[in-house]
Amino acid sequence: MNKETLLVIKIGGNVIDNESFLDSFLKDLSAIQQPKILVHGGGKLATQLSAKLGIETQIIDGRRITDAETIKIVTMVYAGLVNKNIVAKLQANSCNAVGLSGADAQLIQAHKRNHPTIDFGFVGDIDTVNHQFLQTLIADKYTPVIAPISMDKNGLLLNTNADTIASSVALAMSSAFKVKLFYCFEKKGLLSNVNDEKSIISSIKINDIQQMIDNKVIIDGMIPKVQNIKYAIQQGVDSVCLCHASNLLDISRESGIFGTTFYNE
Amino acid sequence: MNKETLLVIKIGGNVIDNESFLDSFLKDLSAIQQPKILVHGGGKLATQLSAKLGIETQIIDGRRITDAETIKIVTMVYAGLVNKNIVAKLQANSCNAVGLSGADAQLIQAHKRNHPTIDFGFVGDIDTVNHQFLQTLIADKYTPVIAPISMDKNGLLLNTNADTIASSVALAMSSAFKVKLFYCFEKKGLLSNVNDEKSIISSIKINDIQQMIDNKVIIDGMIPKVQNIKYAIQQGVDSVCLCHASNLLDISRESGIFGTTFYNE
Repeated sequence: MNKETLLVIKIGGNVIDNESFLDSFLKDLSAIQQPKILVHGGGKLATQLSAKLGIETQIIDGRRITDAETIKIVTMVYAGLVNKNIVAKLQANSCNAVGLSGADAQLIQAHKRNHPTIDFGFVGDIDTVNHQFLQTLIADKYTPVIAPISMDKNGLLLNTNADTIASSVALAMSSAFKVKLFYCFEKKGLLSNVNDEKSIISSIKINDIQQMIDNKVIIDGMIPKVQNIKYAIQQGVDSVCLCHASNLLDISRESGIFGTTFYNE
Repeated sequence: MNKETLLVIKIGGNVIDNESFLDSFLKDLSAIQQPKILVHGGGKLATQLSAKLGIETQIIDGRRITDAETIKIVTMVYAGLVNKNIVAKLQANSCNAVGLSGADAQLIQAHKRNHPTIDFGFVGDIDTVNHQFLQTLIADKYTPVIAPISMDKNGLLLNTNADTIASSVALAMSSAFKVKLFYCFEKKGLLSNVNDEKSIISSIKINDIQQMIDNKVIIDGMIPKVQNIKYAIQQGVDSVCLCHASNLLDISRESGIFGTTFYNE
């Protein structure tokens, strides 16, 4: 039986922090008629609010350290302000969105990160996703909008990387859907020449990834990202696309080459 | 056909602002096996956060005036911090809660208040409730937890009185359920003698309300509250109980007389 296609789309700060771009992105998203799930990051608002309240934000290895005050801030900002703002804008575009955190319906069950040298504080690593709940919402034509907050089995709210939530959701939905995962980032795709913004690689077979790392086509911070993409596809996600949020509608309509799509042989 | 009983329970600041009492209340709520919906107010947190951020809170006639900065604060605090905190605590007690604002699934559709003399700002008066969405959640054994934020048809988020949300939800669910609405407040019920905390009136027929107002048993701020209760029952809610949150479990078990229950003849 052919599975129905489901789009899982992740946006981060470069969309969330730019209100007019966020508006146009959400208008595009609303125009997509296929079932879809939006996962959003937090953007700069939490850091700005922490600064106004005199709470210092600690970052180690690019990861936010989440102390007791900061988990309150990110819960407010991510699951409250950002999530409901996105939901309201989607509703204004006739997209029937439902905003969720990982606590709601035990959507994203996680455990507090156990790291040998760094105490990340209230940071969660994902165990399971309640895919039945998402399937029910999608069957009823709702569009889930997921904030990057998870919860452990004792009801502890945890700050969680939105990229990881997106891939965990994509994986969990793969048994029921043909899942296409989109990571919207600041570029239009993976470049074959880092100095030429037009040199977008349109598609990559996951078996070619190691060679591209060896040849230094995939470098630095892109290496773990691409390794995660490879893992997601190996585990059942149909394809993963690295793209710019402004091209999402074109990509969904398959009306040209935008972004870099990773797929299995 | 006998309708299934649904409890709609509203809590306000006297529960939300007291963490240990909130914990014990949510433990009690989790022990109730009947289908239930929790509606919560905002408590003092939004006012405290506004003060820390230097935003002045204006109150006219006991109603918060909601300017552009304040609607952001209440969205963060009510739909983010308070709502997810309650959901997480319920989950820790094995109650599978789903936190929602009125924007999610167009749950509470409202319009910006149009008042002849006061501009309330971003304050919503309710038009409709998406009861189908709530019914689906309840059929799947979830407990909806609703924050006092509504949305207009253009995607504008609006601050909305939690008592009114509770009665609107109760009414909307009355076609499918025998709805028992509970307003948890700071007293154990309506008193026949305001100086005697033990003089709780256990039950009141709605046809006797006018006489109780005339006889000054129901006075001051209780008059509009009781008029709203009468209206809810006339429109199809089975019963409305004014009670203290600490007695909720006893009331649900019908294990004695706690609170004041309003009903039709």
